[in-house]
This record gives sequence, C-alpha cells and structure tokens, in this order.
Amino acid sequence: MSSSRVIRRTEAGWTDVEPRGYKDAAEGPFLHVVRHTLLGARGTRLEPDLSFEVRYFEVGPGGYSSLERHRHPHAVVILSGRGAVRLGDRREPLGPLDLVYVAPGEVHRFEADAYEPLGFLCVVDRERDRPEPVREHEVGE
Amino acid sequence: MSSSRVIRRTEAGWTDVEPRGYKDAAEGPFLHVVRHTLLGARGTRLEPDLSFEVRYFEVGPGGYSSLERHRHPHAVVILSGRGAVRLGDRREPLGPLDLVYVAPGEVHRFEADAYEPLGFLCVVDRERDRPEPVREHEVGE
Repeated sequence: MSSSRVIRRTEAGWTDVEPRGYKDAAEGPFLHVVRHTLLGARGTRLEPDLSFEVRYFEVGPGGYSSLERHRHPHAVVILSGRGAVRLGDRREPLGPLDLVYVAPGEVHRFEADAYEPLGFLCVVDRERDRPEPVREHEVGE
Repeated sequence: MSSSRVIRRTEAGWTDVEPRGYKDAAEGPFLHVVRHTLLGARGTRLEPDLSFEVRYFEVGPGGYSSLERHRHPHAVVILSGRGAVRLGDRREPLGPLDLVYVAPGEVHRFEADAYEPLGFLCVVDRERDRPEPVREHEVGE
C-alpha cells in the first residue's frame, strides 16, 4: 500500500513535479506552453499501476499549443483562464471547468486569450503514439 | 472526427451530464456525495476511444465517501474546498489543486470539511473492479 501519496500544490506548481518545456521546437510552432506531468509519468516508476497520465498545461497569454494530430484521444478539463480549442476547422471558446474530448485523428490546438493564461488538465493513455505536427493548409485533409 | 466535442460547464454542473447519487446505500456508509461522470462513461458509447473515465465528485460540508478498497487505482485532483483523505491508517488534509494517488488495494475515504464542500476530479480505468466496503475495525488488515 505504500505507494499511495498526496502531492501538494505549491506556489510554483506541485511538490516533486518539475515543470517542463512543452516539446522540441522542431515539432511545430507553439508559444508559451509549460507542462507539468502530475501522475503516471511515462517512462518512470511513479504510480506504476496507472494506465494513464495526468498532465497540467499552462498556456501563457497569447500563446498556443502546436497544431497536431495523433491516434490517442485527449480528455481535457479547463481549470483557469479563457481561451479556445481548434478542432479540425472549428474553433470553440473555453472557460473554467469546460471539458474537451479530442477524438483520435482530430487536428487540434489549444489557445489562450490575449491577456490571461489558460490552465488545463489533459489525461492521456500512458502508452501512446507520437503527435504529428500539422500545417494550417493541411487541416481537413 | 465527428465525436470530438466541448462540454460546457453550467451553473448546475455540465451540459448533458446528469449528476447522480453516489452509490447504493447498501455499499457502506457515506454522506452528501454527488457524482458527475464527465467523459468516458462506462457502459455508454460516449467517447468510445477513452480507456479511462473522468468523474467529478462533490462532497457536501461534513460529508464523506464510503470507506472502501479495490484493485483499480485512483488519480485525484482537488478542484475546490477543503477536506482530507484517509489512506489506510493515515489521514492527510487536502486543498485546491492537491493531488492524490490511491494505489491498488489501499483503503480510502474522501472527507469534506465541516463548512465547505470538497470538489474533486477522479480518473479511473473505464473497465475496473467493484469497490469493496471496509469497516473501520478492518483497516490495516
């Protein structure tokens, strides 16, 4: 039973959770995105029985994640701020506690409003395929 | 791609998400617990590609979930309020954005403070075993 644990929220993030840059710049344009892998981090022995990973993303004002697609789905819960999600050729506004399901293969991007960071949880399969960057003119193909 | 969707937070909960009583009273003592199954509801065709379920629980002031154990783990993110979690014979205080990992087999219970509801997300495997209620004197066995 010893691996149960409480991880405390701190001013800078969470105890023992190192915030990371989002991904390699080569993987497509993105701006002001920080990732915190909270539970079930892939490639670690943390929470070994979790089959999924719980991450927290913060997108700074005016920032956005990369436009991408992959086979694994996303389950997203907005925690704070305002922004929008691109889903294929749609764009939907987002606010606190809105939910987003990104189906397999859907081109998507999360965007923060100009003056406020957008913070959200994103749950994914622990084992999953690698995102494929998509260019704007490829959306809908 | 058509199954991607945004589910809006509303004053009463979420669009198209029916809040439910927590469980049958026969399954052990609990008090003031409401469950909202947000994404990947077991036994439905919603979000068919999710292998996990995202639920939101609200425990009213002075309320608590049942003392129980099961083989599937819990990944919990506190969203609002104050309370505590029982993990075996430990009891740890909880506040907004604290995280809890409940390992397989761990006896646990979530409790709200006396004057404030405790709201949290709990992610679990979509297919999972049934919780087994535990009596106070059995903890640690």
